[in-house]
Amino acid sequence: MSTPAKSGTSRRRLPREVRETQMLDAAVVVFSRWGYHSASMDEISDGAGVSKPMIYAYLGSKEDLFTACIRREGGRLMEAIAGAVGEVSRPDEQLWHGLHAFFRFVLDYRDGWIVLYRQARVQGGAFAEEIAGMRHQMILVVAQMLARAGCAEADSTPTAYALVGAAEALSDWGLEQPDVTAESLTDRLMDFAWTGLGRLGDR
Amino acid sequence: MSTPAKSGTSRRRLPREVRETQMLDAAVVVFSRWGYHSASMDEISDGAGVSKPMIYAYLGSKEDLFTACIRREGGRLMEAIAGAVGEVSRPDEQLWHGLHAFFRFVLDYRDGWIVLYRQARVQGGAFAEEIAGMRHQMILVVAQMLARAGCAEADSTPTAYALVGAAEALSDWGLEQPDVTAESLTDRLMDFAWTGLGRLGDR
Repeated sequence: MSTPAKSGTSRRRLPREVRETQMLDAAVVVFSRWGYHSASMDEISDGAGVSKPMIYAYLGSKEDLFTACIRREGGRLMEAIAGAVGEVSRPDEQLWHGLHAFFRFVLDYRDGWIVLYRQARVQGGAFAEEIAGMRHQMILVVAQMLARAGCAEADSTPTAYALVGAAEALSDWGLEQPDVTAESLTDRLMDFAWTGLGRLGDR
Repeated sequence: MSTPAKSGTSRRRLPREVRETQMLDAAVVVFSRWGYHSASMDEISDGAGVSKPMIYAYLGSKEDLFTACIRREGGRLMEAIAGAVGEVSRPDEQLWHGLHAFFRFVLDYRDGWIVLYRQARVQGGAFAEEIAGMRHQMILVVAQMLARAGCAEADSTPTAYALVGAAEALSDWGLEQPDVTAESLTDRLMDFAWTGLGRLGDR
């Protein structure tokens, strides 16, 4: 057991990485709820349990903080997808696992997804460009996956656009449903994109 | 042949509806290019060949003008889809014709689509709500079409979300291609959503 004084000291001495994680966690929640302009740095510092000057010292301006949130959440999403796809080799399994990782991110890191997909895009400018870059990267990865699945070279990019758009829009729906899971969203989208609506009557 | 004076008089006497159409046409082009905030009322009045006070007198503030653009272009899109779907009865034909009308709007009224899909959404607030309402309406129409095509009641709404998202994202791609047509985009999306990627290897 440490004395209160020691405890206070050790709280101030948290490693920089841990502090930054706390600040980013709090910032993602607040930016998700209010958007970039309306988000209050006071609410973020309250949520992180640190002072506002400490946030500025660690992560820079509000703009820098928002950019850091976009990069962390976007990186997390991209890594989750790449990791999941790498685990399997059959094309339909790769697609299932990639979509599953995507929907798991949307549901597990709901605030992160809302920052990426809703709040950053509506800001325009550099934030929107950052998001567009990530989305382009995701479309490239999906196009490569589709090419391996037998999609003709000329078709893989437009089909990847369609698939990413379908997954994003299905997330809009999924976030409003009380009992949805990443598995059920993935199965839905596979029914749509892999099996095809034309076969629905056959079942 | 009229004298210059008469010609000037008749130009000022254009019916209100024609004047408003000219103003909206010019506004859609300028809002598409620059977005709501950066669009200049001077450029709009130049494009419409009328004075700025006349625009304010006819259509109200810049905000009112942007709202009028959203409503006209959104109404045009919805009517095009409803009209195309009403022409045929087989579910796969309805889907093809509905998607075709959608892509034809995107390509033929490119500026209108950009105002609806890119510029209005990034404004947030009342503009984004207007767009969200139209999109919700479109998803409802698509869900009804899918239900008629044999889609189970519980699946038709999420599948409509996925389909609308896929069509929007494919439009992003299509607008960057030099030689794309509404037919080719429709066929692509039908390959994806109706036939299913799982069948691609069979062909």
